[in-house]
Amino acid sequence: MSKQIYFDNAATTQVRPEVVAKMLPIFTNQFGNPSALYDIGQEAKAIVDESRASIASLIGADPKEIFFTGSGSEADNWAIRGTAYALKDKGNHIITTAFEHHAVMNTCAALEKEGFEVTYVKPDSEGIISPEDIKNAITDKTILITVMYANNEIGTIQPIAEIATIAAEYKIRFHTDAVQAAGVLPINVGELGVDMLSISAHKFHGPKGIGALYIKKGTKINNLISGGGQEQGKRAGTENVAFIAGMAKAFELAHMQMDENRLKVAQMRDYLIANVVSKIPRVKVNGHLTKRLPGNANFSIECIEGESLLLLLNMNGIAASSGSACASMSLDPSHVLLSIGLPHEIAHGSIRVTLSDENTYEEIDYFVDKLEEIVKKLRGLSPLWEEKEDK
Amino acid sequence: MSKQIYFDNAATTQVRPEVVAKMLPIFTNQFGNPSALYDIGQEAKAIVDESRASIASLIGADPKEIFFTGSGSEADNWAIRGTAYALKDKGNHIITTAFEHHAVMNTCAALEKEGFEVTYVKPDSEGIISPEDIKNAITDKTILITVMYANNEIGTIQPIAEIATIAAEYKIRFHTDAVQAAGVLPINVGELGVDMLSISAHKFHGPKGIGALYIKKGTKINNLISGGGQEQGKRAGTENVAFIAGMAKAFELAHMQMDENRLKVAQMRDYLIANVVSKIPRVKVNGHLTKRLPGNANFSIECIEGESLLLLLNMNGIAASSGSACASMSLDPSHVLLSIGLPHEIAHGSIRVTLSDENTYEEIDYFVDKLEEIVKKLRGLSPLWEEKEDK
Repeated sequence: MSKQIYFDNAATTQVRPEVVAKMLPIFTNQFGNPSALYDIGQEAKAIVDESRASIASLIGADPKEIFFTGSGSEADNWAIRGTAYALKDKGNHIITTAFEHHAVMNTCAALEKEGFEVTYVKPDSEGIISPEDIKNAITDKTILITVMYANNEIGTIQPIAEIATIAAEYKIRFHTDAVQAAGVLPINVGELGVDMLSISAHKFHGPKGIGALYIKKGTKINNLISGGGQEQGKRAGTENVAFIAGMAKAFELAHMQMDENRLKVAQMRDYLIANVVSKIPRVKVNGHLTKRLPGNANFSIECIEGESLLLLLNMNGIAASSGSACASMSLDPSHVLLSIGLPHEIAHGSIRVTLSDENTYEEIDYFVDKLEEIVKKLRGLSPLWEEKEDK
Repeated sequence: MSKQIYFDNAATTQVRPEVVAKMLPIFTNQFGNPSALYDIGQEAKAIVDESRASIASLIGADPKEIFFTGSGSEADNWAIRGTAYALKDKGNHIITTAFEHHAVMNTCAALEKEGFEVTYVKPDSEGIISPEDIKNAITDKTILITVMYANNEIGTIQPIAEIATIAAEYKIRFHTDAVQAAGVLPINVGELGVDMLSISAHKFHGPKGIGALYIKKGTKINNLISGGGQEQGKRAGTENVAFIAGMAKAFELAHMQMDENRLKVAQMRDYLIANVVSKIPRVKVNGHLTKRLPGNANFSIECIEGESLLLLLNMNGIAASSGSACASMSLDPSHVLLSIGLPHEIAHGSIRVTLSDENTYEEIDYFVDKLEEIVKKLRGLSPLWEEKEDK
């Protein structure tokens, strides 16, 4: 592999060596089926139990409230569909926001086709949802509110506890997609007041293909995947013992270094933003400057086509993205950037840079230099830019 | 780990060292998100593409017909629910069998609660489904037939191609759960004539937590997991690159040694059955003797309680099971054994022994000795046995 500067940690992360070391012996030694009563099975079960307890304790939950899934997307789908179907006799209205991850957006859209009604509350121009707007969207048919903890493109952090208080007041189920927040921000489900919360290991240096849904005790939810009795009969499929252990290990490591990393990464990010803004004219930083994830920077660069920019950055050994990786095959501008009021042509010229504690200031300096160079080059080819410069 | 004799290969298998070696570098080197356009992402995408092509070619499919899932259970759920919802305007009737895996049984049961009607066709006393019985169950409301390729408890192989011919004749969608067959029996989706087919890596010495659904081109199906555009927009969630590569590797290895292993394992299995039957009185072999998976032996042992038997075997270092691992937490007798006509008390005294090519004749000899010893001991405690002996 060519060693690249990796600035797309919101898309996925490198698995930490300690996590690989934790998983490795499980494939060949503790390979038993956790549902089996013989020793090899029970050894595997002990690993699953221990991992579940560890993750639960880190978010202030009971181990019985943690359910492993095959991804963050599965956790989101389950929370939303499972609640919608379980409560459909009570009502058919769901409240979400206009800038959720596609796992939430497209699940809500699918439910609309089945007769559910969905209100998509818009964030303000800085990418923050107003709890008041959520409250105003509530009807007597509302059965679920789902609002992301932190946005995956612009990194803005939402007032989850305030929204949860409103949901509780109206006795409405509340779910948050905390996939971007988990491992970066401290999460305490009790303090947040959520009923359900999704996380995904590969966003915090764990493996891809494992997630979890916190479901508060007593919360009624239908199964998304039926079958065997695993996960208290709520999510069928032989447990992915190795990845469950890896996820717990990655989550533990993230928490051990959380305060230190958050500060370190935010300082690097602020340095990156300051440099980009001072060196490149007509750049806008998208999203609230302080209510945002420490590693996230998102810029709109006038008269630039995002994809060309990314390709040229890649040729210079830099991995960055234009938005959500999940939607990268689409040519539509980001729904997130449109939701905060950016016009189409500006949304198209956007770039997301997401750092982890493994990045360095040297990488940032190199990136800023290259970005400046590439932007000049691309703008040189742009008739739109000539017009602007003339003014 | 205490080294056990592992006789539960239908529950799960040990990951082969070559598979671990294939996955290992991906966690830390090719860790990119396959949806990203920069090099680290594209390297991951190449691994996914290559793995998909390999699996496709081994079952005679096009790579675009292979969709990765988080488990065999997810593949089954998706095939059944996705078809039911996609075709609900055409009809509401599903045909399956009375001895499917729980991933199929419980999904069908859940759909019954939603207004679908399900016919559970019974196998004969040897555990084989009659195509004629399937045909007779068809109504003008039938939208899906789902019949397992090989049974997970008694290993019997079903006449899939014949059933597929009937399904095609009536233009009814046909799915087979091939989780137990894949990696053991050759599969060619064209020759079988199926529209959908589920497989799971951990049954053929790949990792737990990855499966795939073959979906014939042009087959209409709703998403089970909505979100990002992965898997041609049909199954959302960042691709589990490492496990996808591991699954392909395990499948390749299984095919390289398939004919040789099938013969070797079947000979060991027949040796085991012959010895058990000759040394222990009042034992019945469940399921057809030749139309069965090479590694599967399933016995009902009169006047024995299955769980006690397994616990004592475990104390002697032997890992075997009483039926499906997924249902092992339940005290109900196996629905599979009941479906072939066994009375409750006989079904309760059953044991499944499933071999792989890694087992040996020495292990079998040890097992038969221990089984004989334990059965004598348990029968010595049984008042029922005393009565029988008196006769």
